[in-house]
This record gives sequence, structure tokens and C-alpha cells, in this order.
Amino acid sequence: MKSDRESAPMVALDFEKMGGLIPAIVQDEASGDVLMLAYMNAEAFRATLDTGQATFFSRSRQKLWVKGKTSGHLQLVKAVYLDCDADAILVKVEQVGGAACHTGYRSCFFRRASAMGLQIEGVPVFDPTEVYK
Amino acid sequence: MKSDRESAPMVALDFEKMGGLIPAIVQDEASGDVLMLAYMNAEAFRATLDTGQATFFSRSRQKLWVKGKTSGHLQLVKAVYLDCDADAILVKVEQVGGAACHTGYRSCFFRRASAMGLQIEGVPVFDPTEVYK
Repeated sequence: MKSDRESAPMVALDFEKMGGLIPAIVQDEASGDVLMLAYMNAEAFRATLDTGQATFFSRSRQKLWVKGKTSGHLQLVKAVYLDCDADAILVKVEQVGGAACHTGYRSCFFRRASAMGLQIEGVPVFDPTEVYK
Repeated sequence: MKSDRESAPMVALDFEKMGGLIPAIVQDEASGDVLMLAYMNAEAFRATLDTGQATFFSRSRQKLWVKGKTSGHLQLVKAVYLDCDADAILVKVEQVGGAACHTGYRSCFFRRASAMGLQIEGVPVFDPTEVYK
């Protein structure tokens, strides 16, 4: 529990269930669109509150990740919520550049699933080959 | 990969990253409110698509869980989305009874976090002692 106390003295998060990580939902504050889901460790949670820029822990790179640092498409934090079990986080943001997904779509959830398969909804906001050079 | 093919032949989900589970965000289709986050295994994902009732895998009880089966507060599925990495699910629902959280709040994310601590936002929709008898 040491990391919890260090990261946010008055907020007890349950990092135990998932080996130090908690899933964080990112929602566009203005439109209500769910943009993405990523993971925070205690340090990322603290950085998100302290800096006002959504910060995650990258499972693939195993390090802190300020969303948009490479693309310029930062997520400016408007509000942070915890769920009833304190094992999920909701971050309401202003999405700089209008798109959260590295594929160029506004939301990472641009594929609709049904018994028939997947269907793409929406159009890309940017061309990833131009943004990630 | 066998379970993926069985559950939804034309949808390839990445159940490997989290030992057979994928986080599923539940969003109220009408209001856009994020209601809760739970987990699906392949069977829960299939049941959600097939029955039209949001179905999860309970990590604490280690079994399938039709949300609202006890309380009557079912979640009627309006649309299901996968994210770009196919390792997160977004379910848009009509929330029967108006509240998703077992505490009686509309959303499980009723506690706002800041450097100052936690603050409750919103009011309970139902009294849990009346609903869960």
C-alpha cells in the first residue's frame, strides 16, 4: 500500500487486483465520446492529477507515457473519477487535435462489433503517417 | 485462440493480455454517461452479442454474470465496439432502472478525485437495501 499513499495521500486506489495497474477510461468531456482505455500505475495517476495531462503506464513499453507527447495530441484533464470499488478510473479530457487514436480516428472504439463481424464507423481525423514521423 | 473463434467467428479479440479477460466499458447510450467497467471472457462477449443483455465475467465469483439479473437493472445492449488493439470493449446500453451501480448511484464513477481527495457527485437513484434483499 506504500505506493498508494505516496501517489495520492487522500485517495486509496486498489492497485492490487492487476499487479500495480488500474484501467483508465478516457472520455471527451465535450462530446461524451469514449476515446480510449489505457492503464495507470500509482505514478501515472499522480502525474495525471499533478500535471493536468493524461498520463498512463504503457504495458508494451513498461514505462510512463504522457498521451500525445509524440503526436502533440495531448489530453488535457478536466476531471478524474474513481469507481465504487476504486479499481477503475474515468478521466474526462479535452482532446488536443481532436483524435485520440494512433490510427487517426477520433476514438479508439471505431469498430462496431455484431454477430455479423466488424464494421468501421466514423472517419479518420488525421493521417498517422503524417503525425508519427 | 480457440475460444475466440468459438465465441464470435468473425471478431478477433485479444484475450491473451489479461489471462482470458478483456475490460468492457459500459456507457449509457442516451446520456453518454460512463456507467461502469467490468470484464468479459469469450463466453460473456458472445452472450452479450447473442442475448442483447450485457454479460460479464465476475472476477470475484469466477463465473458469468448477467448484469442486473438480481436487481432487475439489466443493461440492454444497443451497440458494441472494439478498440484499435481489440483489447478493450465499449458497450452502449439502455440502463433499466436508471442506475448501474450496486451502491444505488447512476454511475459507478460517482466519486471525483483531485489532489484534495475524493468528493461525491450525484445522488443515489435507488436504495441498495431495498433492491438487494
